[in-house]
Amino acid sequence: MLGELHITTPPPHGGHLVDRVIRDPDEGKKMADGCSAVYDIKPTLYKDMPIRNVYREIMSICYGFFSPVEGSMRSEELERVLNERRLSSGWVFPYPMLFDISKEDLKKLGVVPGDRLLLRLKGQPFAVLDIEEIYNIDPLDVTTRTFGTVEKNPEVVVVPFDEKHPGYTIYKYFNTEVLAGKYTIINEPKLKPPFDRFWFPPAKSREEYKRRGWTTVINHQTRNVPHVGHEALMRNAAYIGDTKPCDGIQVNAIIGAKRIGDYPDEAIVESHEMVNLAGYVGPKRHLATMCLWDMRYGNPIESLLHGIIRQNMGCTHHMFGRDHAALGPYYDMYAAQTLWEKGIPSFGFPKPPYAVEKGLYMRPQNMAEFWYCPHCAEVTYSESCTHKGEFQRFSGSFIRSLLAEGIFPPSVIMRREVYQIVVKWWKQFGYPFNNKKYLTEREKELEVDLPKMEVPKFK
Amino acid sequence: MLGELHITTPPPHGGHLVDRVIRDPDEGKKMADGCSAVYDIKPTLYKDMPIRNVYREIMSICYGFFSPVEGSMRSEELERVLNERRLSSGWVFPYPMLFDISKEDLKKLGVVPGDRLLLRLKGQPFAVLDIEEIYNIDPLDVTTRTFGTVEKNPEVVVVPFDEKHPGYTIYKYFNTEVLAGKYTIINEPKLKPPFDRFWFPPAKSREEYKRRGWTTVINHQTRNVPHVGHEALMRNAAYIGDTKPCDGIQVNAIIGAKRIGDYPDEAIVESHEMVNLAGYVGPKRHLATMCLWDMRYGNPIESLLHGIIRQNMGCTHHMFGRDHAALGPYYDMYAAQTLWEKGIPSFGFPKPPYAVEKGLYMRPQNMAEFWYCPHCAEVTYSESCTHKGEFQRFSGSFIRSLLAEGIFPPSVIMRREVYQIVVKWWKQFGYPFNNKKYLTEREKELEVDLPKMEVPKFK
Repeated sequence: MLGELHITTPPPHGGHLVDRVIRDPDEGKKMADGCSAVYDIKPTLYKDMPIRNVYREIMSICYGFFSPVEGSMRSEELERVLNERRLSSGWVFPYPMLFDISKEDLKKLGVVPGDRLLLRLKGQPFAVLDIEEIYNIDPLDVTTRTFGTVEKNPEVVVVPFDEKHPGYTIYKYFNTEVLAGKYTIINEPKLKPPFDRFWFPPAKSREEYKRRGWTTVINHQTRNVPHVGHEALMRNAAYIGDTKPCDGIQVNAIIGAKRIGDYPDEAIVESHEMVNLAGYVGPKRHLATMCLWDMRYGNPIESLLHGIIRQNMGCTHHMFGRDHAALGPYYDMYAAQTLWEKGIPSFGFPKPPYAVEKGLYMRPQNMAEFWYCPHCAEVTYSESCTHKGEFQRFSGSFIRSLLAEGIFPPSVIMRREVYQIVVKWWKQFGYPFNNKKYLTEREKELEVDLPKMEVPKFK
Repeated sequence: MLGELHITTPPPHGGHLVDRVIRDPDEGKKMADGCSAVYDIKPTLYKDMPIRNVYREIMSICYGFFSPVEGSMRSEELERVLNERRLSSGWVFPYPMLFDISKEDLKKLGVVPGDRLLLRLKGQPFAVLDIEEIYNIDPLDVTTRTFGTVEKNPEVVVVPFDEKHPGYTIYKYFNTEVLAGKYTIINEPKLKPPFDRFWFPPAKSREEYKRRGWTTVINHQTRNVPHVGHEALMRNAAYIGDTKPCDGIQVNAIIGAKRIGDYPDEAIVESHEMVNLAGYVGPKRHLATMCLWDMRYGNPIESLLHGIIRQNMGCTHHMFGRDHAALGPYYDMYAAQTLWEKGIPSFGFPKPPYAVEKGLYMRPQNMAEFWYCPHCAEVTYSESCTHKGEFQRFSGSFIRSLLAEGIFPPSVIMRREVYQIVVKWWKQFGYPFNNKKYLTEREKELEVDLPKMEVPKFK
């Protein structure tokens, strides 16, 4: 007998959900008043374009998406993450989380360990950073060790990283000075529409699952408007579960700095919601959510973060396709699936993340490909359908080129209702995809508004 | 962490595969010579129609499908099966397995415990029964306790059983005298075409999985020609697995006494094979097989036997739909799923079969319903698709009525290639479904031929 293997709602990663949000404005103000300096958060730029904004990391940390991480990492923890993908506490974590500033800014601020630094966003107090350590990094070294190299990670790294890789660029253009310490949000931001209704921080998502009677929940990672192939992946992956298919299917969209030619984030979240509103996977079984994070496209490394985010949200399963969170030829197309099936020793995983000490509870669902087959007259799975010469692969760039030409995509490619969401935002932004104007304005506006909070000391 | 939960090929039920087949004709002949009497196997009749032939039980036992059962049960074991669904050894087993004969026949045979009885089939020596005990039963009592009653099994029995239920009728028309003891096949039968190529006794199916590199294999139970809904159930249930969907999908057709209006067994096995030949689930991932058994339609009880057969064959998972192996209103439509999700205490299962001592290794995949939805433009899952008023349920009797009228079923209902198999056997038998003539001839011919074996003693 295999034993009574009933899968239960997973514990938060590290044991408890981080909640570092002050909800009482008076208390928040008091904390701001106690700060010794103020710093205005600015995006990381690359060729004049915003590629990262640390505010998103602060949000994801303080609302518990990245539990058990509580702030910007100390130098000893950074080393351990880069060497073993482990926090100081031993819990698995994939990426450096750093509050990096320039030498000039550090000089201007004049802060030292023990100081509390006020972080301002869009001109308003947003969070504080309780400085524990100040140290400097070699961004190129951090970058290389974050993503790996062909020599050191031969199991999965195929081509050396370069500046065509957005994640590589993000880390390479980090500032050299790091302020390490815990973040606390002292002035709770308001998510703007349409993002507000997709905002389910872990404590809230867990409540929502409970309300819906969901125990087994599979997560679908997205940074796209769903075509019929994505929808099939999502629906079919969810037939995994315990003694029956998963109770719930969660889509979690990564919302953050995007590239020219991507779909606007607004269209991404609303089009996924439309999958349930239009009844393809009804709202009782489907939940569209989001997480703030500037995608690093780290494939296996990113998949670990995805596992952590979604385990914290309460998911029991995570689907991983080929080229998960990948871009370009750098990683092997099965890198994330390899990690979740047998581990990647060179990244610190002699076994999969759910089989190592202080690893994840989350179970993977490694999926092959879906394509449209005219013989089967439906979307079919590459491991089942054998109609070679007949089936046709879904191509995101083909679909984008149809849309850019104003061609209504056939329903075997994109659902009518999903397409209407693309059109809705197309009308709003003047183009179906992100252009420079959209990206620049989005970065100014961000996804949140901050309530006014007076801190006379830093007027 | 959940631990390294990799699912492995299950052990045979009870620990080892039963193999009670003598493959050396000389040895077989010697055993026949040592018999003290001979008995010609005859089918159980009900209203002149064959409803059971004990030869199928002997085949399934001796080839290991029903491991660890080795023969006709002794009275003490019968009691334990009826009371707790356990063999004397403690291993779970659902049904009485008995070699029953009439009082007259027993008198004629004049056998006593310790005797070896020769069993003849189609005029040829087939097997021997080493008699350990001779006792009598009250068939109605055995029947009632086999299927349960509204009073004693209120969790799942909804309507009292009667003679409209084929399994009830099978047991009710058992003979009263039981010869208990182990069977040994002494003259190996040859499966007739087309059944021969679907004959994968457990030792062979396990070899076949190994050859194909299959570890996770989900079984689909059938007694039908597959319509598109069955195919969807099979394909989609298989997305369960371990860290990826199941390597293999096995169809195991129950071949035995059938009812008027059922599809002929020949069409059933070949139409399932056609699912893979036509590439809907390619032959690399799909295997059509069979097992000899006169269906008892015992829903949860039958699902236990299905679990045992397929675990012995090497399957790791078994899909159970609503009304699994059911007929009529007797059991709750979720009875089998209830057993496999939480157990049925009144049948001896305070926990599911994989969570009790000496239970099964097999994991269930409890599936809801599939229907065709014109809005989704495909077969959809009842837990996902919400297009009420649009979707249409698959109805076996509707499809049968189309076929009976000679109407080519639309491809959203039945695959063209599958339909052609129905037509092939329709031409052979003069009608697409079993009629009295087919059933009577089938029962004379059976699924096997027996080599000639001279046993002068019993000329």
